Amino acid sequence: MNLPAGRLTGVIPPVCTPLTPDGAVDTRSLVRLVDHLAGAGVDGLFVLGSSSEAAYLTDHQRRLVVETVVRHVAGAIPVLAGAIDMTTPRVLDHAETALAAGADAVVATAPFYARTHPAEIARHFQRIAKEIGAPLVAYDLPSSVHSKLDADLVLDLAADGTLVGLKDSSGDQATLRTIAISAPTGFSVLTGSELLVDTALLLGAHGVVPGLGNVDPHGYVRLVKHATAGEWGRARAEQERLLGLFGMVDAAPPARMGRGSAAIGAFKAALRLRGVIDHATTAEPQIPLTDDEVALVAQRLTAAGLG
Amino acid sequence: MNLPAGRLTGVIPPVCTPLTPDGAVDTRSLVRLVDHLAGAGVDGLFVLGSSSEAAYLTDHQRRLVVETVVRHVAGAIPVLAGAIDMTTPRVLDHAETALAAGADAVVATAPFYARTHPAEIARHFQRIAKEIGAPLVAYDLPSSVHSKLDADLVLDLAADGTLVGLKDSSGDQATLRTIAISAPTGFSVLTGSELLVDTALLLGAHGVVPGLGNVDPHGYVRLVKHATAGEWGRARAEQERLLGLFGMVDAAPPARMGRGSAAIGAFKAALRLRGVIDHATTAEPQIPLTDDEVALVAQRLTAAGLG
Amino acid sequence: MNLPAGRLTGVIPPVCTPLTPDGAVDTRSLVRLVDHLAGAGVDGLFVLGSSSEAAYLTDHQRRLVVETVVRHVAGAIPVLAGAIDMTTPRVLDHAETALAAGADAVVATAPFYARTHPAEIARHFQRIAKEIGAPLVAYDLPSSVHSKLDADLVLDLAADGTLVGLKDSSGDQATLRTIAISAPTGFSVLTGSELLVDTALLLGAHGVVPGLGNVDPHGYVRLVKHATAGEWGRARAEQERLLGLFGMVDAAPPARMGRGSAAIGAFKAALRLRGVIDHATTAEPQIPLTDDEVALVAQRLTAAGLG
Amino acid sequence: MNLPAGRLTGVIPPVCTPLTPDGAVDTRSLVRLVDHLAGAGVDGLFVLGSSSEAAYLTDHQRRLVVETVVRHVAGAIPVLAGAIDMTTPRVLDHAETALAAGADAVVATAPFYARTHPAEIARHFQRIAKEIGAPLVAYDLPSSVHSKLDADLVLDLAADGTLVGLKDSSGDQATLRTIAISAPTGFSVLTGSELLVDTALLLGAHGVVPGLGNVDPHGYVRLVKHATAGEWGRARAEQERLLGLFGMVDAAPPARMGRGSAAIGAFKAALRLRGVIDHATTAEPQIPLTDDEVALVAQRLTAAGLG
Repeated sequence: MNLPAGRLTGVIPPVCTPLTPDGAVDTRSLVRLVDHLAGAGVDGLFVLGSSSEAAYLTDHQRRLVVETVVRHVAGAIPVLAGAIDMTTPRVLDHAETALAAGADAVVATAPFYARTHPAEIARHFQRIAKEIGAPLVAYDLPSSVHSKLDADLVLDLAADGTLVGLKDSSGDQATLRTIAISAPTGFSVLTGSELLVDTALLLGAHGVVPGLGNVDPHGYVRLVKHATAGEWGRARAEQERLLGLFGMVDAAPPARMGRGSAAIGAFKAALRLRGVIDHATTAEPQIPLTDDEVALVAQRLTAAGLG
Repeated sequence: MNLPAGRLTGVIPPVCTPLTPDGAVDTRSLVRLVDHLAGAGVDGLFVLGSSSEAAYLTDHQRRLVVETVVRHVAGAIPVLAGAIDMTTPRVLDHAETALAAGADAVVATAPFYARTHPAEIARHFQRIAKEIGAPLVAYDLPSSVHSKLDADLVLDLAADGTLVGLKDSSGDQATLRTIAISAPTGFSVLTGSELLVDTALLLGAHGVVPGLGNVDPHGYVRLVKHATAGEWGRARAEQERLLGLFGMVDAAPPARMGRGSAAIGAFKAALRLRGVIDHATTAEPQIPLTDDEVALVAQRLTAAGLG
Repeated sequence: MNLPAGRLTGVIPPVCTPLTPDGAVDTRSLVRLVDHLAGAGVDGLFVLGSSSEAAYLTDHQRRLVVETVVRHVAGAIPVLAGAIDMTTPRVLDHAETALAAGADAVVATAPFYARTHPAEIARHFQRIAKEIGAPLVAYDLPSSVHSKLDADLVLDLAADGTLVGLKDSSGDQATLRTIAISAPTGFSVLTGSELLVDTALLLGAHGVVPGLGNVDPHGYVRLVKHATAGEWGRARAEQERLLGLFGMVDAAPPARMGRGSAAIGAFKAALRLRGVIDHATTAEPQIPLTDDEVALVAQRLTAAGLG
Repeated sequence: MNLPAGRLTGVIPPVCTPLTPDGAVDTRSLVRLVDHLAGAGVDGLFVLGSSSEAAYLTDHQRRLVVETVVRHVAGAIPVLAGAIDMTTPRVLDHAETALAAGADAVVATAPFYARTHPAEIARHFQRIAKEIGAPLVAYDLPSSVHSKLDADLVLDLAADGTLVGLKDSSGDQATLRTIAISAPTGFSVLTGSELLVDTALLLGAHGVVPGLGNVDPHGYVRLVKHATAGEWGRARAEQERLLGLFGMVDAAPPARMGRGSAAIGAFKAALRLRGVIDHATTAEPQIPLTDDEVALVAQRLTAAGLG
């Protein structure tokens, strides 16, 4: 399938990548996870994002993920694929692979590792858009990329047709609002801030890409439905329930592992506990959760009504 | 050839990667650059580092660079190859390719983009060392990687045999000194701070990996020779001449491009002006130098006696 | 007057400090500004905050500001006073002066310049609260203080009675939400994010401290009224009008001055254009706006219906 | 006394501020510390710097420190006084007090807390120099100030007579070298990097302001003497002994307190163990060292021959 006639909206989870204990992509579990998400009524899937451990997957594994998901979804909902790499030429290689495997759109960050000027960041997105001939979404993730896409840059690239949307995981809702107000018709503003979905939709965002949506896609589908209907009280209640559930990312303490490892580890543990995937294995060099930490994850599931 | 019986020492330039105007690797120019460096008496070559634009080269180009240089050097001096990528599984893929192409050692950074705990950084290097069965050098480049390898971490990984050396481009000479004093025999401390070679050698470093060494390898060979002989006055004079030459990295102003683009652009312009390579092209999305900026580079060459 | 029986709520503008052309506090203009704010129906005043240029005022000027405002307000609404300094002993000196001059509560940041551990930050607030015997509000401003107050720290200090509230200017609405949900009854969560007032109130904040509220207090009073009434559509419309007005902070370009200077300069220019204060002078070493930049401020006023 | 006819050179320790157990300035101990330093042959004293806990001292305590030291030194060696505060007007107040108390020169940082443009930083130093009519030294301490003084800025302010020197605690020796090479005659480049004194002098610095010099001033006097004589081997040996001694700053672990608290706490513990000051008390809110941590400090003293 292609992108919707209008723009990307609603719940588009960044799909976790289940792994076998020896680190291979567990395609059987991946397919079950896709069914779990699609069955909840999500509006699209984002594979090879941060919650997918894209940074840890080899080129071979990345291709396998896109192929597996695209084949299984079979056009029912759009599949966006991350092309996460340091610079234009390397991003282009990933983008071509993903599109060849059937992805409907490409998601790319500004250059990282390489330290670039805003003019070079603009050039980066423009070159990618021109080469791939497919919809391009910018991914703003300063905690990983170490630069921020400012509102003027995004709006310029929206206006000249380079970008069809923005996935904002910066946490900067003031800039998000500025972009949402001024972006051209058809441009899609998606937030990655899974604890601020109701407020993001209130200020003009069109959808959400929640890592926690792997664990509880039904909750995010309800949340967006309430917000879209203007039922802000019900939206807030649902969001607050999800905030409690999100506490699972603190099951493992910062003294023991990176915050990314703790979050992905918790999401995968929860998916295993819920019976969606077979193993909670995370990629190297991430430190795995202990049994006690997994028990804390289980408590969060129970407290949120998912036990 | 293999690594020297003792440890890596002396001048080991990070080899620029000449490109054709359409962005392909210019292997004819690359070979001439290798001759230029080897002819000056450098002690080794580091391909696929930051000055090589490794972050911008595709996997295909990376392999071509290693193969071309290894074949041409033919064992005369060791060739170290960067395996620059985000996480352990991806670094391993690059390392295997480089070693298959004949590299003598692998150079890797801590994980980046992924945000990892120091315990995960240690695990990263340990997994790589165990898998590759070849010498591993840690590359400390906080301006790109956004974490710093602290002295205890490096010393632990030196003591357990994970690392054979450190390439330090952090600019933190106090930590460099702490490591140099305490590292085990045979561990090689290399500085990437091209303006602080005399002082780095005074405080215990064993060698230097100077980006500017592409332009003036003879200068760095003399500088190391003076310092090794304890002729600190002559070393300082040579270093100050090279500091003047390094001013070329400011030919293009920060308002126009990233500092990396300005530096690599200047080095390549200087190599072209000196007749070593055919084109000063830099990889996308870097902004190229203007003719006026190249003229400033030429002035620096002349002032340093290389005109 | 003392603090309200319940907690601080509503609109509490950080009061600009009008200066004469030679840099003295312009008390006549300050009194008119207080009337402008109180007349619009704000719920309290925050003097000696960042928008007040507290960092630029001498001890003498700081005392004069508190005395002038407290005397003029005469208990009609509460007056909070910033005690902005590097460490506990210095903050205590400012707090004592402000309380002696009649302030109703003290607002303090974590230590800055000094680099402190979270345990030392907690100790800092605890010592202050114990010494002053008056309500203490924590001020979270990572862009100036270079550390972030995390949710656990704030909640612990709320639970043990150290803090009566938080003024959050971090822009991190997810942490704000976590605090708002878990804080004890009576604890006041105030946002300094003047472009996110509707969303902050939706997620549980109790009030707002908007720098732009100096220029348009009526707008913020309306905005809070709409939000409190659950009229989110009207709140959003008011917030979007204020977002347009806020564009005045970009009248002076980043190439010419700091973003703080541009914002304070614009607010003061707008207050002068509106006839509230006599001079738009900002404190040294801030660069003043040009006439052309002031004309852009005037355009923003007109566009927002305040021309 | 006034500043030396030439320029500031040699060892100029940042003088610790001894405190009584209840946090008052212990002037008796302060005088003994001054004798300890002057008796070792240091070339000047820097009071109210970071190692003096200037950020923690009240205005009253700051004045008392300058008065006590100036009176006791009685012109034998120059006394520089820090005027550490956020902005120009506040720095001026401190500078006037220090000069009235007899300080020979003023040391000031760029504005902090306030976020300023480089043009505003230049204006800051120019206003201060113009107002105080006394020698002004710039203090570059990015870890506290969160901006870096770049080489062009310092060289411009040296050339126009605003600054008589730079105290560089940035750790950036490449910039230090650039400044040392190009600064006008009479401009003094002082390093605060106590582990890099030999290398700083090799690359052109004129003196050192070592916090650890409180504990072992004789060591730093010998180190500078060797370096000045071109005896780099002896200088290096002395520096390496001092590096071992500096290990005392790690006696308290980062999990328990800030790195500043650990360093100042260790210096004060060592001064008490050496019988120079009566109490190792540090200012609030710094966490004190435990007895076990003090025992580690004692071990460092013994190992360095000062037990």
